[in-house]
Amino acid sequence: MTSALDPSIAARLKRTADGLVCAVVQRRGTGEVLMVAWMDDDALHRTLTTRRATYYSRSRQQLWVKGETSGHTQYVHEVRLDCDGDAVLLVVDQVGAACHTGDATCFDATALLSPED
Amino acid sequence: MTSALDPSIAARLKRTADGLVCAVVQRRGTGEVLMVAWMDDDALHRTLTTRRATYYSRSRQQLWVKGETSGHTQYVHEVRLDCDGDAVLLVVDQVGAACHTGDATCFDATALLSPED
Repeated sequence: MTSALDPSIAARLKRTADGLVCAVVQRRGTGEVLMVAWMDDDALHRTLTTRRATYYSRSRQQLWVKGETSGHTQYVHEVRLDCDGDAVLLVVDQVGAACHTGDATCFDATALLSPED
Repeated sequence: MTSALDPSIAARLKRTADGLVCAVVQRRGTGEVLMVAWMDDDALHRTLTTRRATYYSRSRQQLWVKGETSGHTQYVHEVRLDCDGDAVLLVVDQVGAACHTGDATCFDATALLSPED
């Protein structure tokens, strides 16, 4: 690990085999869950220091700043770590659609189970 | 894969190397994010068919029904799949504390970044 992430934070992370933690992104105010992405230590460091949500793309194997291409940036108000260190919760102001499909959230398109009547 | 999960759902999942998808659990009504856990195909199948939140424990390498020991069960109202198939969102009624520490949510204890004044 050569990340600049605060060592006291790095020591608390429980990463997947490929060195990542799960990032859950929630809209400030409404509480909508917008998306789930992945962070390595460097992505978390950049997110904490710039307040611009930055993730690690497993498919492209590189960092990406949310909205860098689309303009649909996320300003990060708050980051919380979960009890076992394998997930972080980001509370953000989302510009435009969170999902690359154009949906407001990445969970809009597909219901696997609907509320009972 | 020998899971009973609906093949049309199974075909849409993008699993980690160890066969899991990420499950984000949100409280119905308030929208609080309660916890993040993991599901294999069988855990998802059981969750969808019983409406009792069921996860896969990476440390114990077995399924667990949330609240089976603690009584802090989750009744599942809704399950949604995200756009790239690697995460599900559960909307639940939570009995008692969601976190094994006794906190209401697994994100209560540790702020890595706080809102600006």
